[in-house]
Amino acid sequence: MNAAPRVLAICGGVGGAKLALGLDRVLPAGELALVVNTGDDFVHLGLHVSPDLDTVMYTLAGVVSRSQGWGREGDTRRFLDEIGRRGGPTWFQIGDLDLAVHVERTRRLAAGESLGVATAALAASFGVRRPLLPMSDDPVRTLVETYHGVLEFQEYFVRLRCEPRVRAIRFAGAETARPSAAVLSVLASDGLEAVLVCPSNPWLSIDPILAVPGLRRALERCRAPVVAVSPVVAGRAIKGPTAKLMAELDIEVSAAGVASHYAGLIDGFVLDELDAALASRLALPSVAVPTVMRSLADREALARATLDFARSLTGGPRLRHAS
Amino acid sequence: MNAAPRVLAICGGVGGAKLALGLDRVLPAGELALVVNTGDDFVHLGLHVSPDLDTVMYTLAGVVSRSQGWGREGDTRRFLDEIGRRGGPTWFQIGDLDLAVHVERTRRLAAGESLGVATAALAASFGVRRPLLPMSDDPVRTLVETYHGVLEFQEYFVRLRCEPRVRAIRFAGAETARPSAAVLSVLASDGLEAVLVCPSNPWLSIDPILAVPGLRRALERCRAPVVAVSPVVAGRAIKGPTAKLMAELDIEVSAAGVASHYAGLIDGFVLDELDAALASRLALPSVAVPTVMRSLADREALARATLDFARSLTGGPRLRHAS
Repeated sequence: MNAAPRVLAICGGVGGAKLALGLDRVLPAGELALVVNTGDDFVHLGLHVSPDLDTVMYTLAGVVSRSQGWGREGDTRRFLDEIGRRGGPTWFQIGDLDLAVHVERTRRLAAGESLGVATAALAASFGVRRPLLPMSDDPVRTLVETYHGVLEFQEYFVRLRCEPRVRAIRFAGAETARPSAAVLSVLASDGLEAVLVCPSNPWLSIDPILAVPGLRRALERCRAPVVAVSPVVAGRAIKGPTAKLMAELDIEVSAAGVASHYAGLIDGFVLDELDAALASRLALPSVAVPTVMRSLADREALARATLDFARSLTGGPRLRHAS
Repeated sequence: MNAAPRVLAICGGVGGAKLALGLDRVLPAGELALVVNTGDDFVHLGLHVSPDLDTVMYTLAGVVSRSQGWGREGDTRRFLDEIGRRGGPTWFQIGDLDLAVHVERTRRLAAGESLGVATAALAASFGVRRPLLPMSDDPVRTLVETYHGVLEFQEYFVRLRCEPRVRAIRFAGAETARPSAAVLSVLASDGLEAVLVCPSNPWLSIDPILAVPGLRRALERCRAPVVAVSPVVAGRAIKGPTAKLMAELDIEVSAAGVASHYAGLIDGFVLDELDAALASRLALPSVAVPTVMRSLADREALARATLDFARSLTGGPRLRHAS
């Protein structure tokens, strides 16, 4: 990055990538960096797979599958079908184009590159100009404790389709993981105007990032306002298992439940216009806007609204622990 | 294998696989086993690639590319083209179907399986019923000493298209490699009737197998006749760099040059009908038959002629060192 970006987006996979794309489209060159969850990363078929990094990269590159929101548009499964015929596992979807990214990432890591460097090279090959930053170069693995034992994230999320009831979520390796130096540098920069927590699953996609102690500390200390966008609208998750998970964890399934989860970390909260009535229950500034992103215009509008709201908080009181 | 096979074929890649297919078609179930060169094996894109094992496996499975003699018929290169766009290496051809075998083999090896066990599982998935035996589970790597330095085999063979002039060939790891226990068991069996050295490149494809000391010793000691088929016809190699290599190594580019190379190891030699006049120069029994295999019928005919010739040597004097 040439100058320090003014906006840092904290991102999981599909939901977060939508807002990331909106931000990418409304912010000038050099003004946006993204820190992405790697707690979903896993080694599959001997390959290092980084689902959230890929989803954000494909989305910003304009090559993401429009129907799925992850994977490559127009991808084929010649390889995966053949893996099945050879007796290998096929439960995790890998398209023929998608596979090239996993193989090239694995090759780079085996050659000694850090995940950050490998990601930068891959992103550059797709023409992605925004810094796409893994939260850490060290491995952090999201583990889901269910009533049927502890599951690796992809086992839970893909193979078992989030069916097992969840008791708790852990992030193995997070305690000792060093945060991305590039992220720390963005957070420490005087030029930073806003940190935006994208509407990804707070427990599965954002918490792994916050579980890296040095990163959370830097976030708490940064001078720019931190604003989260609710992934829950009218008591339902826009996508994925967020609502089911919140219920299983005994958390109120509402935008207010999400805001409480982020208490001590954020200075403001963006909730959906359908949830405007909840604003009075929140102990922090909020704005109610349309948050369901169906079109590209929706993504841009939410990006603008979130940025405007964050900037309106500049200079206001900090609600964060370490501020 | 249920009973001990009566015939063991020693095999490299494309040339050897043709005769292997002929043998597969003319020998009853249970009567053929194949030991295959793994000196060409290498790790590429983080994947364990076994070119000769794959060529023989695809050939016996009937899925080999008819035009190339290696790789899969009808394969596509979605993955490889994408690797190129990501900045990765594309000089080594890997089709989308072919890739599944490399990934599944790599996965099995990483899970602790031996190369022999992983190969057996892959071969079974293709319906290959003949024991397909890597010469060793230990790594042996063919290194080509050229006037421009030492090259790994695939660098020399594929990337540089055998262009550098060769001074010598080495087999790193061969001295300490343990031979395949299954091969030793076949060679020690009373029921073994013939060992056939297929018309692969003697220096690049057969020598790595012979370079494994325990395997060579077992071959020298086995009671069945050992017969080699010449890959050189009328002073030219049927395929590949054999003739060029022989010239560079100061070896007479003829079937007689091949027979000399195998002296002390073989009891009989099969040369092409065009080379019948060379027979008188050989210090061992030989037969001159059509050896150029264009059609399936050619493969079967050469297999039958070679088997008949080998069986005619049974009970005759042994020409091998340790017999």
